[in-house]
Amino acid sequence: MIRVLFAAKPEVWQSYRDVLPTAFADHGLAAEIVQLTDPHDPATIDWIVYAPNSELQDFTPYATLKGVQTLWAGVEQVEGNRTLTAPLMRMVDDGLTQGMVEWVTGHVLRHHLGMDAHIDGAAWAPVAPPLAADRPVAMLGMGVLGAACARALATLGFPVTGWSRSPKAVAGVRSVTGRDGLRDALSGAQIVVLLTPHTAATENLMNTETLGWMRDGAALINPGRGALIDDAALLAELPRLGHATLDTFRVEPLPQDDPYWVHPKVTVTPHIASATRPASAARVVAENIRRGEVGDPLLHLVDRSAALA
Amino acid sequence: MIRVLFAAKPEVWQSYRDVLPTAFADHGLAAEIVQLTDPHDPATIDWIVYAPNSELQDFTPYATLKGVQTLWAGVEQVEGNRTLTAPLMRMVDDGLTQGMVEWVTGHVLRHHLGMDAHIDGAAWAPVAPPLAADRPVAMLGMGVLGAACARALATLGFPVTGWSRSPKAVAGVRSVTGRDGLRDALSGAQIVVLLTPHTAATENLMNTETLGWMRDGAALINPGRGALIDDAALLAELPRLGHATLDTFRVEPLPQDDPYWVHPKVTVTPHIASATRPASAARVVAENIRRGEVGDPLLHLVDRSAALA
Repeated sequence: MIRVLFAAKPEVWQSYRDVLPTAFADHGLAAEIVQLTDPHDPATIDWIVYAPNSELQDFTPYATLKGVQTLWAGVEQVEGNRTLTAPLMRMVDDGLTQGMVEWVTGHVLRHHLGMDAHIDGAAWAPVAPPLAADRPVAMLGMGVLGAACARALATLGFPVTGWSRSPKAVAGVRSVTGRDGLRDALSGAQIVVLLTPHTAATENLMNTETLGWMRDGAALINPGRGALIDDAALLAELPRLGHATLDTFRVEPLPQDDPYWVHPKVTVTPHIASATRPASAARVVAENIRRGEVGDPLLHLVDRSAALA
Repeated sequence: MIRVLFAAKPEVWQSYRDVLPTAFADHGLAAEIVQLTDPHDPATIDWIVYAPNSELQDFTPYATLKGVQTLWAGVEQVEGNRTLTAPLMRMVDDGLTQGMVEWVTGHVLRHHLGMDAHIDGAAWAPVAPPLAADRPVAMLGMGVLGAACARALATLGFPVTGWSRSPKAVAGVRSVTGRDGLRDALSGAQIVVLLTPHTAATENLMNTETLGWMRDGAALINPGRGALIDDAALLAELPRLGHATLDTFRVEPLPQDDPYWVHPKVTVTPHIASATRPASAARVVAENIRRGEVGDPLLHLVDRSAALA
């Protein structure tokens, strides 16, 4: 019998309380699941299933911990935590990539088709939008998520330029790199999607200068990280741009008095583009803990050397 | 020098006045283009480029006509016209299929992602939609357009059931036929797309009985033909359904007093899903007339035997 601590906000537990025991059982694990709020002796915990916004920030009492499996793809909030010495595994869930592809494809098509006007009840004016082939898209970031979205958009017919640190070969996607490549991608696109990781190098990637490279009327879509955008610069550029659809923010939930909420050219979605789906995430958790228990290599281990340097 | 009559509403000519001469020239044709409103001798016209809602409904004076090439995919309004004895060619434009795929994929994803709430500024509530794999779609009609849309949706991960008169093999799409198949497709779907042709057999395909087979909360998307829906029956069922997004209507433009305009569960788009794009359509027109002039077989000839029977 292993003991697993579930450390996430109570509402998250509601989504996992049924699927997690099922996944453990399906993977042949006899597990007792303890919630953070349940009375428990930290020294008896084998594994932690972890949301980085959990109350648990000091891992010191969990002295015999075998590992921490996050429920999030992003680990910025935990990778630098020096009280955690056990292995840290990132959530890599096919469902997460798939969900991101659906969200990005949907919002790109929404802007492409000019859907909002019809949803708002625009009068009859039978002017069709151009075809996707005439709507260039820039994908900033060509990691697992960016590449999957770029591929889906190229399959639908959009000309996609993918910007990444090093050249990336994805069928149907033009690869550019460096500062010149960024300017090329942004100035050629009518729709720009942000899916770079948040690092020191990408903080405020979209600032007054780079937003200025975007075309008049172009749309900016950010399912990546809030810190990729200099918010004041975006608000200043929006009168010239077409729209911004933002799923991630520096502070979440987005504060009620944030100007994005009421801006007519901004759509806020509540960080749902890459939401982990409990059923598939629970299978990833169970498989990784099973591996740890039988001595197989853990999947999706986070290299924390830079974060702890 | 051939003489081509352009018979469509004046605003359509605005879209073709530049691209049509270019396409003729690119196909090696020396053509004089005459508009319907220009003074002209009908007996001198070789070809007619035709929109079925044109003022021209009596073809009798065009005694030496070599053929009529429509600008529309649907030919219901002209195929039964007994004054027309020259060959009739339907518009089959790759751009048209591609545009339909983009419109259908976009509106399916809009309903799938629950996008309207965010466009309307819904409060922060981070609940992700299910994945496409958990959102069954029914495609009624698996002709060129339906099959292309079904394929695109299946590629994105949706489980698609395609209903057609005879079984259709499309990768990733479950094929059903007949009355039982219709009930199966409708009762299993959360999103229903109508892309059957309009025939006597499909008139009011969606009526009180068949709408009743749809699930509570399901969405109906009609980029096919207005006459596929019994409008009164749909209005009666809407309180129970999720939404209807309609691109085609029995009367177009949709009259200003039509209840669809103000219904909170209806989105009206102005027959743009399969709009012909002038640049690519002009190439189809020029190629077919070139064929006719050199004696090559005409493409997309309409078999009018049933309509004239």
